[in-house]
Amino acid sequence: MVIGKVVGSVVSTRKCEDLKGNKFMIVEPIPSLKVPSKLVAVDKVGAGIGEYVLVATGSAARVDNPVAPVDAAIVGIIDDGSELE
Amino acid sequence: MVIGKVVGSVVSTRKCEDLKGNKFMIVEPIPSLKVPSKLVAVDKVGAGIGEYVLVATGSAARVDNPVAPVDAAIVGIIDDGSELE
Amino acid sequence: MVIGKVVGSVVSTRKCEDLKGNKFMIVEPIPSLKVPSKLVAVDKVGAGIGEYVLVATGSAARVDNPVAPVDAAIVGIIDDGSELE
Amino acid sequence: MVIGKVVGSVVSTRKCEDLKGNKFMIVEPIPSLKVPSKLVAVDKVGAGIGEYVLVATGSAARVDNPVAPVDAAIVGIIDDGSELE
Amino acid sequence: MVIGKVVGSVVSTRKCEDLKGNKFMIVEPIPSLKVPSKLVAVDKVGAGIGEYVLVATGSAARVDNPVAPVDAAIVGIIDDGSELE
Repeated sequence: MVIGKVVGSVVSTRKCEDLKGNKFMIVEPIPSLKVPSKLVAVDKVGAGIGEYVLVATGSAARVDNPVAPVDAAIVGIIDDGSELE
Repeated sequence: MVIGKVVGSVVSTRKCEDLKGNKFMIVEPIPSLKVPSKLVAVDKVGAGIGEYVLVATGSAARVDNPVAPVDAAIVGIIDDGSELE
Repeated sequence: MVIGKVVGSVVSTRKCEDLKGNKFMIVEPIPSLKVPSKLVAVDKVGAGIGEYVLVATGSAARVDNPVAPVDAAIVGIIDDGSELE
Repeated sequence: MVIGKVVGSVVSTRKCEDLKGNKFMIVEPIPSLKVPSKLVAVDKVGAGIGEYVLVATGSAARVDNPVAPVDAAIVGIIDDGSELE
Repeated sequence: MVIGKVVGSVVSTRKCEDLKGNKFMIVEPIPSLKVPSKLVAVDKVGAGIGEYVLVATGSAARVDNPVAPVDAAIVGIIDDGSELE
């Protein structure tokens, strides 16, 4: 899993039917993890811009909705994320 | 997931039976994500060259067709993709 | 799989229901593996900070609990991990 | 998915029973994709050395044979692959 | 899949119940593949240190035992691996 900061979001009006209702957030991994790329993840916990979150990737992102074509999901908000920077 | 720009397509006449009818697009991730490689993805939403799209990778690309041997799919078109560059 | 050292942990109070009860550890791969990024993994074996562990990634992290949205798990403690550094 | 050129093959006589009958090809991604590593993939379409092919990775490589321990498969031959170089 | 040389092994006494009986080998990909990291894989074919092997990653490593939390397995021994170096 990856810890990162929510730095933005994107909107897609024309998308697969099974993606309806999802919010797509851009997450920047915290530098100490040395994960080189940002992730685009659906939000499962009501995360906001600037919050530090836990992201699950791969099929883990679909455990609650197997038909949605997503490969990354925000599944938790870190209590003291800024201390990890 | 990855946000990228459709930069090309490829044609494969001789392919697995379960790939018939798919269009294979080449997607270049937007630079700000720092994803180093381009992706080859099947198109689920009618994306065209130059459009900014959302790509799901791994088994997420097969949620609507589990027998097709694909590992990346364009699942949405970004509303204002050029602003993300 | 990856061998690494447990270097920290994170707490997430606001998280998906199916993550309740999990501990999230930060694992730094041993340098000789040349894995560039740290991993965040749930702990299945009672690992402590400083211990050398075996981490399984992807759906392997959910074999004992398919509904938990996790993609990495500590599944073993290495007997003589410090010798691998 | 990845587009690449078949640059070699390997033979494994001592292997898992469920791999019997597979041919293992070495595929070099086309430079424009910037995929850094070569792939070893089983051949599903009768590809030959020098041909440009489409490779599916992960569980996509097992859609037609779920018990074979493979994680990459050549699933198509590109019509005009040399133009992509 | 990855071709590599078995360069070591690790022992884990305290591990998940479903890992019992597995041997964990460290595999170094052959340089020509340009895979940057070593892999830790369970051995399915009786590979020894110094042998060149074929490694399957991801869920492919669990086709014969879906409950074992492993993400890489040695599934074959290459006939003339040293020629690939």
